Amino acid sequence: MRILVVNVNTTQSITDAIGKQAADAASPGTEIVPLTPLFGAESVEGNYESYLAAVAVMETVRAHSEPFDAVIQAGYGEHGREGLQELLDVPVVDITEAAASTAQFLGRSYSVVTTLDRTVPLIEERLAVAGLSARCASVRASGLAVLELEQDEQAAVDAITEQAARAVEEDRAEVICLGCGGMAGLAERVVERTGVPVVDGVAAAVTIAESLVRLGLSTSKVRTYARPRPKQILNWPWHTG
Amino acid sequence: MRILVVNVNTTQSITDAIGKQAADAASPGTEIVPLTPLFGAESVEGNYESYLAAVAVMETVRAHSEPFDAVIQAGYGEHGREGLQELLDVPVVDITEAAASTAQFLGRSYSVVTTLDRTVPLIEERLAVAGLSARCASVRASGLAVLELEQDEQAAVDAITEQAARAVEEDRAEVICLGCGGMAGLAERVVERTGVPVVDGVAAAVTIAESLVRLGLSTSKVRTYARPRPKQILNWPWHTG
Amino acid sequence: MRILVVNVNTTQSITDAIGKQAADAASPGTEIVPLTPLFGAESVEGNYESYLAAVAVMETVRAHSEPFDAVIQAGYGEHGREGLQELLDVPVVDITEAAASTAQFLGRSYSVVTTLDRTVPLIEERLAVAGLSARCASVRASGLAVLELEQDEQAAVDAITEQAARAVEEDRAEVICLGCGGMAGLAERVVERTGVPVVDGVAAAVTIAESLVRLGLSTSKVRTYARPRPKQILNWPWHTG
Amino acid sequence: MRILVVNVNTTQSITDAIGKQAADAASPGTEIVPLTPLFGAESVEGNYESYLAAVAVMETVRAHSEPFDAVIQAGYGEHGREGLQELLDVPVVDITEAAASTAQFLGRSYSVVTTLDRTVPLIEERLAVAGLSARCASVRASGLAVLELEQDEQAAVDAITEQAARAVEEDRAEVICLGCGGMAGLAERVVERTGVPVVDGVAAAVTIAESLVRLGLSTSKVRTYARPRPKQILNWPWHTG
Amino acid sequence: MRILVVNVNTTQSITDAIGKQAADAASPGTEIVPLTPLFGAESVEGNYESYLAAVAVMETVRAHSEPFDAVIQAGYGEHGREGLQELLDVPVVDITEAAASTAQFLGRSYSVVTTLDRTVPLIEERLAVAGLSARCASVRASGLAVLELEQDEQAAVDAITEQAARAVEEDRAEVICLGCGGMAGLAERVVERTGVPVVDGVAAAVTIAESLVRLGLSTSKVRTYARPRPKQILNWPWHTG
Amino acid sequence: MRILVVNVNTTQSITDAIGKQAADAASPGTEIVPLTPLFGAESVEGNYESYLAAVAVMETVRAHSEPFDAVIQAGYGEHGREGLQELLDVPVVDITEAAASTAQFLGRSYSVVTTLDRTVPLIEERLAVAGLSARCASVRASGLAVLELEQDEQAAVDAITEQAARAVEEDRAEVICLGCGGMAGLAERVVERTGVPVVDGVAAAVTIAESLVRLGLSTSKVRTYARPRPKQILNWPWHTG
Repeated sequence: MRILVVNVNTTQSITDAIGKQAADAASPGTEIVPLTPLFGAESVEGNYESYLAAVAVMETVRAHSEPFDAVIQAGYGEHGREGLQELLDVPVVDITEAAASTAQFLGRSYSVVTTLDRTVPLIEERLAVAGLSARCASVRASGLAVLELEQDEQAAVDAITEQAARAVEEDRAEVICLGCGGMAGLAERVVERTGVPVVDGVAAAVTIAESLVRLGLSTSKVRTYARPRPKQILNWPWHTG
Repeated sequence: MRILVVNVNTTQSITDAIGKQAADAASPGTEIVPLTPLFGAESVEGNYESYLAAVAVMETVRAHSEPFDAVIQAGYGEHGREGLQELLDVPVVDITEAAASTAQFLGRSYSVVTTLDRTVPLIEERLAVAGLSARCASVRASGLAVLELEQDEQAAVDAITEQAARAVEEDRAEVICLGCGGMAGLAERVVERTGVPVVDGVAAAVTIAESLVRLGLSTSKVRTYARPRPKQILNWPWHTG
Repeated sequence: MRILVVNVNTTQSITDAIGKQAADAASPGTEIVPLTPLFGAESVEGNYESYLAAVAVMETVRAHSEPFDAVIQAGYGEHGREGLQELLDVPVVDITEAAASTAQFLGRSYSVVTTLDRTVPLIEERLAVAGLSARCASVRASGLAVLELEQDEQAAVDAITEQAARAVEEDRAEVICLGCGGMAGLAERVVERTGVPVVDGVAAAVTIAESLVRLGLSTSKVRTYARPRPKQILNWPWHTG
Repeated sequence: MRILVVNVNTTQSITDAIGKQAADAASPGTEIVPLTPLFGAESVEGNYESYLAAVAVMETVRAHSEPFDAVIQAGYGEHGREGLQELLDVPVVDITEAAASTAQFLGRSYSVVTTLDRTVPLIEERLAVAGLSARCASVRASGLAVLELEQDEQAAVDAITEQAARAVEEDRAEVICLGCGGMAGLAERVVERTGVPVVDGVAAAVTIAESLVRLGLSTSKVRTYARPRPKQILNWPWHTG
Repeated sequence: MRILVVNVNTTQSITDAIGKQAADAASPGTEIVPLTPLFGAESVEGNYESYLAAVAVMETVRAHSEPFDAVIQAGYGEHGREGLQELLDVPVVDITEAAASTAQFLGRSYSVVTTLDRTVPLIEERLAVAGLSARCASVRASGLAVLELEQDEQAAVDAITEQAARAVEEDRAEVICLGCGGMAGLAERVVERTGVPVVDGVAAAVTIAESLVRLGLSTSKVRTYARPRPKQILNWPWHTG
Repeated sequence: MRILVVNVNTTQSITDAIGKQAADAASPGTEIVPLTPLFGAESVEGNYESYLAAVAVMETVRAHSEPFDAVIQAGYGEHGREGLQELLDVPVVDITEAAASTAQFLGRSYSVVTTLDRTVPLIEERLAVAGLSARCASVRASGLAVLELEQDEQAAVDAITEQAARAVEEDRAEVICLGCGGMAGLAERVVERTGVPVVDGVAAAVTIAESLVRLGLSTSKVRTYARPRPKQILNWPWHTG
């Protein structure tokens, strides 16, 4: 089967890292197709950028000419999953939800550790919309921006590990979801420091997407995610009718 | 003061109707500037169209060259208000939230009556995100699409009035919020049939925007709605740097 | 239009301060009529005093012989607003609810800073009853009694500012509602210290009352706030039959 | 021990009926002292009357010159219990809460059947304030006023039994709390018709008050229900300083 | 009347202590019958042991050959109460729920202080299932195991008192429920240190069981707690058909 | 990998059906080992039977002498998953939670259709404990007992399909979880009738267990699901010490 894994940032190196994480988690026979959005911010860290990414991911998937069996939206706390579900007949999996859903099988409560403080509310709201808040102990920020993670990886790993440890000790989290990716050894360091399972959203999403495809399940079209009605879309360069 | 009232649909006649409602509710000395989005769907009735509208409203406001004191996003249950709050220093008021907030001063519970069944979940989620769900008795759909409202106004008024009456009788609503607009006599008919106050979101939003401006209050910039960080935005024709 | 602004305390100097705040926020053409309750505690700081104030405010308004267009109950966290809504045909606005409702348009979460610790539960319960708790980050007490606020204003301002700052930093509030009033320069000091918008309940209530009157909206009489049924009221000196 | 059972209505026949219910439930050695409020409405069916009753009950208890060991507030869904807890050192039990609390030991969910539709919101809010809503299946109204219950007892029994049956069948209640009292054979009829346990609030409150006294427990004075601070209370005839 | 008080641990000295607490709280004329489970863990401190205790308590009660009027399950945060309710026609009272329910009559919020950290989630979940979470301020652990409580009573009293004090000061609890028993002077010490009422679950349960019996109330058999259907139970030595 | 799939009923034909469903969903290379509990009820339909099954499943797994990589508890709404998580180092997946978690990726809300009305509360509580209630539209009963499903399959399919259709139409479910299994053609019929995706809990659990094993994730041992402490277990024939 072929799974599109769509980055929300337009930075290619992040797409590469996400693609590698996805491929590592995929079963034999699954082809991972990493995609960079056709337009948008180099890194997504707030509502304006997130809404733009939502639309960009949708158009990037619509413009993809090869067939595919599932789509993963690889951004933590971003908008847009509902729109993809409307547009597509194949399953759509958001990594924020995939991580939380997986974490709930591993412990009584989980925390998310992410980048900047300003993205905490976005993640909290996406978890609430998805019905995954009840066992969320906290969403914590390391204080480092997305692009800083790539620049000083050691500092990033330290800051994230520190917040993960506080989530376990102060917030009583029993599982940690990493709300930022692509760093060598990050998960291992957090496991070492906290002693709790660490869930990577991209890897979790790959297994969920594969499972849905294998079970022959896809998005319900009965109401919320019914196909868009035929409409005139004005002045929109990506519109393909 | 000058208030931008931004339609989410690209249909000019809807912008005209919204502009009229807003002007009717405005205080002397308030100038209402109705805007049609630069791009997007002729009518917004689902997630894809709503996400597109979110971005279109933001870019339309950013492209507006005259100064203004507040912005109203005039779409029921649409995405995007958080992004506008990030981009602007002036107050932003969403009509879904304005109507609910106003209704809560008038009765113990309120219901929303809207167009298609598929927009019910969008409205419910926007109310939940805004913290305005606790006294929402129900969101009900008339079954008529946005553009049908204009075509057979009498049928629309009948269908909406019927759902409003059921909200009062079956769901114990004490106030009705109209989640669709521009129809002559609609509010009056609903008041007549149900005996409860009827809130029009556009009118409510105008008074709230005026009040915030008069009180010298605007969006908190301390965390969630802080200005976007300087970023490269790729391939985005509306980007103005 | 004429708006009654009813103090809950029987201390005239507080009525004067509230009247001034209300007049400052009022539109041209709005007449503010500040009222001191006919009976009750010099300052309201607990349930017994609050229930007494509830009844006193209602009787004070009923005994008012001039016509009026709206009523504001100017006590933070006090009982009674529902009773006023039953008795009157004009809109009733409680300042606790007005402040919270306004704050929700300005940031993702708000905190209230009030006087004594014992009034915290009263405020929390009024916000819960009003359906305004979901985005309340915290209610914090400065530890100073209502009448102490007038005696050492500088100490009061310091104590309140300190709690506001902790609300923003520790509780992640993005807006502060002042649950105690009448101090020169208080709002400015809190804005300066915290960098977040500060909402004064009296001012917010004035704009909301004006808006409801202008929109022709008033309390729903369909169920919860229907007029009291004709009844014998025994031994009640304020009963006017 | 001696327990005051305070009616909220000023109608003596209701006090008599409540006193009888209480005495029937009391242990040997418990003296029940039924009290009619010093002032207030002949029957309490709405917010104005309920706030007045809250204050009347407090003053009636304060004016009682004999010693007592506990107080029961015998009104369904009425305000005021928090004020009594402040004023007194002995335990205070509200019958709405007593019934719900007892019902929770008998089944997974309970419904309340009360008099008029307009009292439903009062009961719902008192249960919410008391933290007893989670297992409340519904609050239903028979449509009969308090004083009508006495006039045509058979019609009252029929109307209440009908609503109880619907609560069990439609709302999945497993226990019924009677939110109106004093009718011969009512509980028996409801048990017969529904097959579920029926809780009378007055009887439940008596056993709870007795239990608290026997266990040597009374209201916590640490914060919410601390004694009122010394204050001037103006123009209040019942003030005893 | 005769009340069975069933320990969840198979340690006889704990049964003795529980029996004594129950007898001290019982009315004249109530016979307390303390029972040790027929099988299970010497002390219950986790899910496996708690599920085993649930079944053991049920079989111990079923095997009891004398008649009885009510059953108390005397384990804090343990599973099984629902099963007992199914099997029996007499009232069943769990001490976790009895303590919380009683605490709610004494203050606006309560905390539970228990033994090991790992039992905190069990207690939280039992309170949630019982609909008694809304006013629970916190569940705190002293860090001492059940059997350690007996070995160094002074250390136990100190550790528990310390957590109780923090619950009152940091979590704003107004009442403390002791989630571990049998220590001389424990309740007194906690009252002394915190100034708030302290509820012992066994004593509270005795008064509630007595009250239900006296009121002629027992478990609703209409749905959740209907008698088990006739079934074959395989290989189960305690099955008595 | 080898996955134990443990029936909660002691009826072998149900174990066979569950084993077949699991094997059909398993990846190549996964060995499914269906197990019948060592003791317990022929069918589990209530709390007593469910608690007994909880213990039986735990002992059956503990007594299993071959190594295994994950365990699935194949009972809808049954107790015990937390105990298994304590006892084991490999992942544990409950089918009730697996179905709900999978359904949440397919639509905005889901309903469960199960057997008898009395099992509805058990399922609701297990979903609440697992934090999976927020998007649960309803749990509906077909009215047929577990063993009746095998006897008249056509009647069972009809009754279940009918409830599924009502869940979609009346409760606004967008996905159906089948809370009863082993019937040929059931899922197909429900899909046909309702047009929404249908999730089988056993199949969903197999893919989740496989995913957790592949990702190298297992139960957090930091608090709630830490290994039981060494203890004496008295008179328990299955204790292996």
